[in-house]
Formats: sequence, structure tokens, C-alpha cells
Amino acid sequence: MTPQHAAAPSPELVFETLTAYQRSAALRAAIELDLFRAIGEGPGDIASLARQCQASQRGIRILCDYLTILGLLAKEDGCYRHTPTSAVFLDPRSPASIASAARFLGHPALAEPFIRLADVVRSGHTVLPGDGSVEPENPIWVEFAHGMAPMMGAMAGPLGAIVLEGLAGPLRVLDVAAGHGLFGIEVAKRNPEAQVTAVDWAAVLEVARGNARKAGVEERYHLLPGSAFDVACGGPYDIVLLTNFLHHFDPPTCIGLLRKVHAALKAGGRAAALEFVPNEDRVSPPMVAAFSLTMLASTAAGDAYTFRELEKMYREAGFSGINAHPIPRSPHTLVMGCA
Amino acid sequence: MTPQHAAAPSPELVFETLTAYQRSAALRAAIELDLFRAIGEGPGDIASLARQCQASQRGIRILCDYLTILGLLAKEDGCYRHTPTSAVFLDPRSPASIASAARFLGHPALAEPFIRLADVVRSGHTVLPGDGSVEPENPIWVEFAHGMAPMMGAMAGPLGAIVLEGLAGPLRVLDVAAGHGLFGIEVAKRNPEAQVTAVDWAAVLEVARGNARKAGVEERYHLLPGSAFDVACGGPYDIVLLTNFLHHFDPPTCIGLLRKVHAALKAGGRAAALEFVPNEDRVSPPMVAAFSLTMLASTAAGDAYTFRELEKMYREAGFSGINAHPIPRSPHTLVMGCA
Repeated sequence: MTPQHAAAPSPELVFETLTAYQRSAALRAAIELDLFRAIGEGPGDIASLARQCQASQRGIRILCDYLTILGLLAKEDGCYRHTPTSAVFLDPRSPASIASAARFLGHPALAEPFIRLADVVRSGHTVLPGDGSVEPENPIWVEFAHGMAPMMGAMAGPLGAIVLEGLAGPLRVLDVAAGHGLFGIEVAKRNPEAQVTAVDWAAVLEVARGNARKAGVEERYHLLPGSAFDVACGGPYDIVLLTNFLHHFDPPTCIGLLRKVHAALKAGGRAAALEFVPNEDRVSPPMVAAFSLTMLASTAAGDAYTFRELEKMYREAGFSGINAHPIPRSPHTLVMGCA
Repeated sequence: MTPQHAAAPSPELVFETLTAYQRSAALRAAIELDLFRAIGEGPGDIASLARQCQASQRGIRILCDYLTILGLLAKEDGCYRHTPTSAVFLDPRSPASIASAARFLGHPALAEPFIRLADVVRSGHTVLPGDGSVEPENPIWVEFAHGMAPMMGAMAGPLGAIVLEGLAGPLRVLDVAAGHGLFGIEVAKRNPEAQVTAVDWAAVLEVARGNARKAGVEERYHLLPGSAFDVACGGPYDIVLLTNFLHHFDPPTCIGLLRKVHAALKAGGRAAALEFVPNEDRVSPPMVAAFSLTMLASTAAGDAYTFRELEKMYREAGFSGINAHPIPRSPHTLVMGCA
């Protein structure tokens, strides 16, 4: 998503934008057909790929050409092979594969408001029922916990290092809207004396519990099912994680939650929110700022907040020493405040 | 659509591709809300735009920021204004506006197969009923004739100059699948002795007839409703236009039609097909080659044919002197053959 500031008027930009939905469809179809596994296994000719994917040669040829145009495959002498991006991030045999993100990012429940986006803009909030994506027990968060774990998991290491900096010994951690649980689990892995309590809908916590088991930290991983706004979250905690959560709500709601978090923290404890934080111009960096549209489409009043806005919310909730820590090689920023 | 051959693996490219459908949705919504007219009228602050578009301020702010990221608006001091592209191609007050293309390019009947694209790739043909977009009397071609006229009309001048080069005096022209009719009408405007016969579904020809009337050539504009494959098309003609048509069919079907066209032409007469003609690698130029996916999704056996393929079809139908004429500042090429 490169900002286009070409001096020359471009009908191509209009045409490409109106047909951009085809890009998402092509990548989703390729993932569904397990095409990137077939590409990795080779040999990459059309007949072999069609056989491996149980698909037609015409379909495979045209899909592979299209993915080549997008930079998601390479083509040489009529055969297709991985690009660096597809090898690392789309081949299911790669440990860094994020192909499962297609399930969440293309989920009909999230895509549907975009079909009626003019209505969303008119009303100023989602056309989904109630509070949209943050309705109680919304099953899309189970999909998120499964599908987005690989993409989010890549940030767990850097996040763990930042939140634990200078801390040692026994720790109590609250992971609000834990989802896949990978962030709290990372803290538990880095600090063998950490006890982690994860809050989320019960069905989502089952996914987190499975990940905690796989990571060998299950006995220090505690489940607190329910809404972060309603549950008695106990404490006091040394660290509260709020990952991919605040952007779903308006500032007063965020401040209310941050007050509750503040009350649950020890004096000097840390609240750490993982967020898309655009620059103050709200249009850069492109991918970060673009996230605001997803919040418009799928929530009643959420947004991608700037650092200044997040800092104000933290301050009003009683926090000080508020800092932004960009997560390397990701669109996310960790915003931390001190209780 | 810039081919991405970055050496470094890019999770951003995967994320942006999976969410690219949001770009189409945002531009469609902005056109539906008549946002680009409001931008052109000014002053461009959020409150004014919301009032002009009868929409919420939150919705307008987030939509305008998103369009700024795409290069379809500019933002300065919290106000939005046109980019060169939006001023020329999206403001309905601009004579070159192509905003109406959103209606055809986002038409549910064309977008639907992309939702089930994996099934399309498996089977090798559209999931639409019958022959897909080229089913008899398919109403989407009325939408095409209305919505795509501004985008296609920009090519009429160059096309008219090419097909008429070296010809003067009385001429008979057959416009196959005339749609909006703008190409045949252009020939009639350039040559006051040209008689044009337009073939298309009856409902579509009503649009063409309206355009012929507006252009003042109605008395030399004749309607021949029906399928180009079935109607007795008369003749002999000096020129047969086949614009945006051959790509819907497989090569044997194209050859059959070209034979019929050849038989309807005078000796030395010209057949001129306006097509997306990718290079022999089938993956460049990007926008041209990408069109093949639309043919996979919406037809039984269509494609974006290379010049070599089109030349072979022309030759097998009896044509000689086959040449490609790229249309300047457009993704189209005019491929001409001599009867």
C-alpha cells in the first residue's frame, strides 16, 4: 500500500482500486487450494500443480499468473516457484507461515460490512448487529485465535522483551482479551516464576489453553472467562497486557477500562497495549493508518488511535511515564503506562 | 499494480493482499456517497463533507483518510482536497470522470464468482449459470453500456483514427457487441458518409441508440439486435469492430466468429478487435495480464489472449496483414486483420 502522489492523473489507479477485491479473492483461493504447498514441493509446471491441487489446468494457470503479477509467485519458463514472500509466509511447511490469517481477514462476518460501506459511513458505525465484532461471545474471536496466531505470534518475542525489561522474580500477569494467548504465554516462557491470568470469552480461552499446554506453561496459566469490562479480575498484577483491544472502543470506554486496569495493578505496575498507532496525520504509515477503516466497518465506535490520543487516555486513567515502543518489522506499537 | 520482486520476504504484502477488498469497497462507497463532488466543491473540512454527503463525521473522516492513503484524496491541515487523479477521473463534474465504472466493476453478478474463486479454479470455468457473463440477454451488459462508457469512450478517438487510416468516402461499418456504441459512433462522426450497423442484445442497443442520437449520427446508425454468432449480419462491410468481445470465448469459438466476420467483409476490409493483450509471458503488463482472472471467474472459457494467439486466430479465419496497435494511455490494444 504505497501512497500515490503522482502528479499525473491516473485512470489505472481508479481501475485497480475498483478491482482490488480480486486480489484478496485470488490469495484466499490459492490458500484454500493449498497451492503454496504444491509450489514448494515442485516441480511447478501447470499440469503438476493442477494434479496436486485437484484443480483444472486453466484455473491453475490463470491463478498462478495473477499471483505472479501480485509478487506472490515467480514464473520462469512456464513454471511457477516461490518468491521470498510466498516461501516464508504462505507455504504451510514454513514455520513463519501466516496463511491461516486468510480465514479471519476474509471472514464473511468481517467482510460483510464492507459490502454496505456507504451505509456504514452514513451512520458512522458498523452495520453488524449490536456492537459488531465485540458483541459478547462473538465466534469470530475463536477464528482470530486460531487464524491470526502465526501473524501475531511473530510479535510475541519483542513484546515479551519490552514488557519484562528490568523485571525479575515472581510476577503476576493479566492478559486482557488474550485470544490465542501467545503474548501472555511468551511472558510465562521468559519468566519461570510468572503466573498468567487470561481473560476472554470461554470458547476463545480454550484455544489459549491449548497453546499454553504446547508451550509447557499450562500450570502457570489461569483462565478467567468473560468480558474484560465485567469480570472481577483480581490482582494486584505486575503487568496487564491489552493486545489488539482498545481500538474496538471509543475513548471514554477505553479510559474506563484503563481505570479498572490501573486499579488492578501494583503501584509501579505496567499496562501494555499493543495497537496500530498511526502518525498524528492519521494517514501514515499507510498500513497502520488504513486499519481505522476496519474499525469503522466492524465496530460501533472504535478507531486506530494516535499516540497522543492513547497517551491522553492513559493519563486520564491515572497512568504516568507513557511510552511508545514500535515492534520491529510489524505494523504494531506497544504503548506502555506506569501505574 | 506494481509487480513486487523485493528480495526481502514481506508479511505486509500478504496482509495487504488479504485486505485489498477494502480498497474497492472504500472507493465504491465514496462514489455512492457523491464524496468526490463534495471534495471538488469544497471547502473540504470534515463537518462540511459530512453535511454535503448526508453522512456521519466519523464515517467521513475515516473514509477520507483511507482514500488519502490510496492516493485518491489529499489531506492538508485536516482538510481534504482532490489529487490529480480524483479531480480528473472521480469528480462527476469532470468531463473525463470514470466514476460510473464502479457500477459495472463492482456489480454483484461479476463479483460473486470471486467469492467462490477456489471452486472456479477447481472446475476451470465460471460458477455463474450457463456461459456466465455472455449468457443471452444478460442484463449486466446494459450496466456495462451505461457505466463503462466514460472509461471506454476515452479510447474512441485513437481507435477511430487507427481503423479509418487511409480510408475515405462511403463506408459500411459493422460494430459487433457494440455496447455503449461509442466506437462505431466515433467512426460515424469522423466519416460523414459512414453507415454503422450495431449488433448487441436489444436492451443494450437502446443505450447505443441514445448515444448515437446525442452524437447526431442517429440516421446513419442501424440496430441489429441478437447474438453476433447467430444474426445474419449482412454486408459487405469495409470495417468490422470487435471491441472487448473475443476475450469472452475460447479460441475455436473466436475463430468461428472471425470466419463469419471475414465473410461479411469486402476483400481488403478490416477487422479490428479491441483487447487486453498481455505480453507472451502472460504476467506483464500487470493490469493487462491481470484481466485474465476476470475471464476465468466470469466465463466458461475466455482469456486475455497474447498477440501470437490472436494472430493465429485471425490467420485461421483467413485474415492477413495482422497488426497490433496499442491505444495510448490505456491498457488496450487494437489488433487488426485484413480480409
